[in-house]
Amino acid sequence: MKGLFVTFEGGDGAGKSSILKEMGQELREEGFSVLETREPGGIRIAEKIREVILDPSHTEMDGRTEALLYAAARRQHLVEKVIPALNEGKIVLCDRFVDSSLAYQGAARELGLDEVYKVNEFAIDDCMPDLTLLFNIKPEEGLERIAANQGREKNRLDLERIDFHEKVYAAYHQLAEKYKDRIKVIEAGRPFESVKEDASRVLRGYLTS
Amino acid sequence: MKGLFVTFEGGDGAGKSSILKEMGQELREEGFSVLETREPGGIRIAEKIREVILDPSHTEMDGRTEALLYAAARRQHLVEKVIPALNEGKIVLCDRFVDSSLAYQGAARELGLDEVYKVNEFAIDDCMPDLTLLFNIKPEEGLERIAANQGREKNRLDLERIDFHEKVYAAYHQLAEKYKDRIKVIEAGRPFESVKEDASRVLRGYLTS
Repeated sequence: MKGLFVTFEGGDGAGKSSILKEMGQELREEGFSVLETREPGGIRIAEKIREVILDPSHTEMDGRTEALLYAAARRQHLVEKVIPALNEGKIVLCDRFVDSSLAYQGAARELGLDEVYKVNEFAIDDCMPDLTLLFNIKPEEGLERIAANQGREKNRLDLERIDFHEKVYAAYHQLAEKYKDRIKVIEAGRPFESVKEDASRVLRGYLTS
Repeated sequence: MKGLFVTFEGGDGAGKSSILKEMGQELREEGFSVLETREPGGIRIAEKIREVILDPSHTEMDGRTEALLYAAARRQHLVEKVIPALNEGKIVLCDRFVDSSLAYQGAARELGLDEVYKVNEFAIDDCMPDLTLLFNIKPEEGLERIAANQGREKNRLDLERIDFHEKVYAAYHQLAEKYKDRIKVIEAGRPFESVKEDASRVLRGYLTS
């Protein structure tokens, strides 16, 4: 494949989605052909699968069922949207991908990193990202940012969820250690512009190489 | 788990579904507590997933997406229906299970036996059948039986599909070889009563042991 596949990862409130959007715009202005996407990305089979996952009445859904459904939606989005764009030589910027499943389902929901990886390996079939930008922010800080954005105080629920987000945070660190070549850590607990500059510099290293 | 988990496998026209039904009835008459089931088995999340798989308009569905969706439906059926029945000490007779995915998707659709096994291993999480009855019939014979049952001649489509069914047949043999302890082969190219007697004899070996 001729394109470049870049995924954006990190806990909530790290600013990755906003940075993805601005980087996409920048690169396009410089003449690059860019696809900005996130799962399910308007792919109708993937949207249908997400409907099954997110239906609030499906309280009986097992954690492994959910992980398999996420992997199925990922597969279809990859085949219909990401791979064709890469084949056309585009830079694909994808908001969350396999590492999110590993951190959230494998670690935080305790299904096991290796177990969830096996399923995703099948879904991805060698189409791993060329580069993963991991936006690193402490869970408390991330949640504070979200609360501030939404103009509300950090509430009891946010505080209760700290434990969950701590697990996500730890898992991302573990992944960054394990996949050093692919995952580059961006310190995200700083002003937006500095974070964006760092991310941009790392990505540009992949464009010139 | 206190129950006995028995799966019924084989190509089309082997008679496994009819035999499952009769064996269930027999065992119940003898005082055993029996659950006869097949995926998705009335489990609403599994039914929803099957709707996505079987929607005839979803022609763009990738083979791996499909395999992940089957595994997801399998997981939910297992968790909600099979495992509770086994915990209650029931004999569970399940029409098709993991070996069908291996034979049909792994082999006949060429996704790879080992690859499809990995995904199903995640779905099943150690709850493998105690016994799998593999009803062995040559594809041509099986298709002839189906044609006869439906009161129609074997048609062009059946003949074209022989190649597909040959792959399924070969895969089942490979599985029977690999999982000798679990899979017992029943020769199904004989009169219904003889096949049923053989299957019954094998299953009863597991009840007394």
